[in-house]
Amino acid sequence: MTSTTHHETRIVSDPDVPLVRITREFDAPAEKVFRAHVDPELFAQWTGPKGMEIRIDRHDCRTGGSYRYVMAQDGEEYAFNGAFHEVRENELIVQTFAFEGMPDDVALERLVLEDLGDGRCRLTSTSLVDSFEGRDGFVASGMEVGVNEGYEKLDELLARA
Amino acid sequence: MTSTTHHETRIVSDPDVPLVRITREFDAPAEKVFRAHVDPELFAQWTGPKGMEIRIDRHDCRTGGSYRYVMAQDGEEYAFNGAFHEVRENELIVQTFAFEGMPDDVALERLVLEDLGDGRCRLTSTSLVDSFEGRDGFVASGMEVGVNEGYEKLDELLARA
Repeated sequence: MTSTTHHETRIVSDPDVPLVRITREFDAPAEKVFRAHVDPELFAQWTGPKGMEIRIDRHDCRTGGSYRYVMAQDGEEYAFNGAFHEVRENELIVQTFAFEGMPDDVALERLVLEDLGDGRCRLTSTSLVDSFEGRDGFVASGMEVGVNEGYEKLDELLARA
Repeated sequence: MTSTTHHETRIVSDPDVPLVRITREFDAPAEKVFRAHVDPELFAQWTGPKGMEIRIDRHDCRTGGSYRYVMAQDGEEYAFNGAFHEVRENELIVQTFAFEGMPDDVALERLVLEDLGDGRCRLTSTSLVDSFEGRDGFVASGMEVGVNEGYEKLDELLARA
């Protein structure tokens, strides 16, 4: 039993450009949500679907840094990597993102945090790729489950920390 | 007087996605064109419009590296920076790109080199942004002059080296 409120996660495919926009509120200030993205130990505690193990190879979340992590479940491994274009404290992370199984499908991701007052904030995350087919394939791949479950784990982490 | 052949540079705005595609052939093998992008001293010799001075702050052109350079003309300075998502020798560079005067307009750039035989190669460079307005503004900003003149300087560098 937990009393943590899980807000709705909105995942919208843009009609005009090959972009997915994820919007989610958190009952925590932007600083805490930002830190949960930047700190490798915190990031590993909530990222990805429930039941997946995550191993962080590197997570140098600063402007000009890079990252790589491996998700594992039932003996299968899925590795992801990218570069941090810009990290602006408590506000913004712009990064690239690739699944190593499809290394030529690179996404440009932009995470924005807005303070909503009363210790709450809104996260908006966009993921831009170079084709609608690629974007729609990404949405159809089951990313929604990973995003929803990841943010539920993040709610719980934020409630504890 | 120079006998260097300047091939035509094609700059095409994609009708479906907010992307610009630049295509250019060079009378040099892919290895040499790749090196002219990776090596900071070579890169500084050809990048940008004629008459611009360029100062490289950093150019760590490897997977997970980053770059920053400043173009200067008539006392005005224009700084650019980004992160290298992936650098695959003689074949591919995927990077982010931002003009520091408009830091929130980040492009995802992808440079592909193809060997054409006879010591020639084709460069295809795409630049993806998150809106058609941003893409069209970038094309209208005079980038064509910088791209054309830069590649003419690159032709001459390749002919000498």
